[in-house]
Amino acid sequence: MSGAWGTPFYEGKAKILYRTDRDTVIHHFKDSATAFNAQKKAEFAGKGALNVAFSVYFFEQLKAAGIETHFIQKCDERAFESLSLKMIPVEVVVRNIIAGSLAKRLQMEEGQILKSPIVEFFYKDDAKGDPLVSEWILSSIFNISRETCAILASSALRVNQVIKGLAEKANLDLVDFKLEFGRDSQDRILLGDEISPDTCRFWDKNTREKLDKDRFRFDLGDLVEGYQKVWDRLQGVQS
Amino acid sequence: MSGAWGTPFYEGKAKILYRTDRDTVIHHFKDSATAFNAQKKAEFAGKGALNVAFSVYFFEQLKAAGIETHFIQKCDERAFESLSLKMIPVEVVVRNIIAGSLAKRLQMEEGQILKSPIVEFFYKDDAKGDPLVSEWILSSIFNISRETCAILASSALRVNQVIKGLAEKANLDLVDFKLEFGRDSQDRILLGDEISPDTCRFWDKNTREKLDKDRFRFDLGDLVEGYQKVWDRLQGVQS
Repeated sequence: MSGAWGTPFYEGKAKILYRTDRDTVIHHFKDSATAFNAQKKAEFAGKGALNVAFSVYFFEQLKAAGIETHFIQKCDERAFESLSLKMIPVEVVVRNIIAGSLAKRLQMEEGQILKSPIVEFFYKDDAKGDPLVSEWILSSIFNISRETCAILASSALRVNQVIKGLAEKANLDLVDFKLEFGRDSQDRILLGDEISPDTCRFWDKNTREKLDKDRFRFDLGDLVEGYQKVWDRLQGVQS
Repeated sequence: MSGAWGTPFYEGKAKILYRTDRDTVIHHFKDSATAFNAQKKAEFAGKGALNVAFSVYFFEQLKAAGIETHFIQKCDERAFESLSLKMIPVEVVVRNIIAGSLAKRLQMEEGQILKSPIVEFFYKDDAKGDPLVSEWILSSIFNISRETCAILASSALRVNQVIKGLAEKANLDLVDFKLEFGRDSQDRILLGDEISPDTCRFWDKNTREKLDKDRFRFDLGDLVEGYQKVWDRLQGVQS
C-alpha cells in the first residue's frame, strides 16, 4: 500500500509522507501506535483509516468555520493530500482540562476544568525530548519570532473553539490537543499535520471515560473501540 | 541577634522576617546556605552581612534608576527594613546567558549568550516543587492575571538592565537572577525580597569563574570568597 505513492520523504511513528509531482504531500496513515517517545509500540487494525477520517472531517469543519489548513482532499481510506508546508518545529498544545504532562508538572489530579484555555509550546527535537518552551525561549534561542508565536497561539485557540464545539455536541470533552503549523509557498502560516484521537484527548462528558490514545498509553481498553466511539458520536450515531 | 526584632512571622532558609509596630518588615539575614530544595545545607560566616550589603546596594541603585522597591533602610550589618508587601507567589527569573535549570531542560551547555533576555515564572509552592509556569497557567489556574504577569515581566526586564549594567562595569556577567514582587498598601506592585549572589548568578567575564551560590551547589570553591570578589568588583576595587 505504501508503495502506491512513490518514494517517501519522511516516515514517522504513525505516518508516511510522499511528495507528489505537483508539489503537494500525501499523508499515508499507518496502523501503528507509539507512546512514551516510542518506547511502547503496537499495531491496531483500523486505526490508520479512522485517523484519516477524523483528520479529513476536522479539516473540512475548520474550513467551513473560515480557518485555512493544509488539507486538499482525501485520497483513499488511508491517505489524504495536503499543501506542502515548511513546518515550524513547534508542537502547539491547547488545554481545556488539566490532564497529561500538565497534571504531572503541577502535581495536580487530572480533570479540573480550566477557567480559560492554556496554550503551551514544545520545541520539536527528539534528542532534547521535545522540551516545553516559551515565546521567550523560541525567539531568543530557536529563531522563532514572538510574532510567529502569537499567530500560533491565536490560531490554535480558534481551532480549539471549533473542535471543542463539535465535541460538545457529541457529548465529549475536548481535554487537550496538539497542533503543528507550517508556512506555505506564499509564507502564510497554515495548520498542518493531523487532528485525531492520536493528537487530541477526548473524554466522555458524563463518565469521563478516556476515548483517545491514553487507552494505549495506560492500557485502559481497546484503542480502536475508543476511537470508533468518538467517531460515531461525532457523526451523530449514539453508541 | 535574631531576638532583637521581636517575634518573627516567617523563618526561611536564609532569612528571618519580623514585623515592626509601624507595619514595616525587618529582613534579618542568616549565614545559612541551602540548595536543591534544602537537601544540602551549610553555614558560611559573613554571608548574611554580605547579602545585606548587596541588597541595600542594588535596591539603592534601582531607586536611583527610577525603579521603586520595598527597600526603606539598612538597620545593621545583618538586617534591612522594607515596606510590608503582600507577596505574589511567583519567582520571576530573568536570563541573559544559558545556565542552571534552563540548560538542563533544553539539554544545552551552559554559557551561550542569549540573543534577548528570557523571562520565566515559577509558581512558589514547595509541595509542588516550585513548578515552571506560564502566564496562561498563572491566570487560568492560580488566579494571577495576565496583566499582573505582564507587569512582573516588564519590571524584571528593567531591573535586569540596571543590574546587568552595574555588573558589566565590574567585568562580571549577570547570567540570570530571581526576583519576587508584592503589592503595597496602595496595591502597587513593587520589587521585594533580596538581590544577592544567592539569587543572581555572576560569572567573571573573562575566566567565566562562577562567583555565586553555584560554588556551594556544586562545590566549586569558597562561597564567601566568591561573594566577596563580586562585592569588591562592584565597589570598584580590583581583586
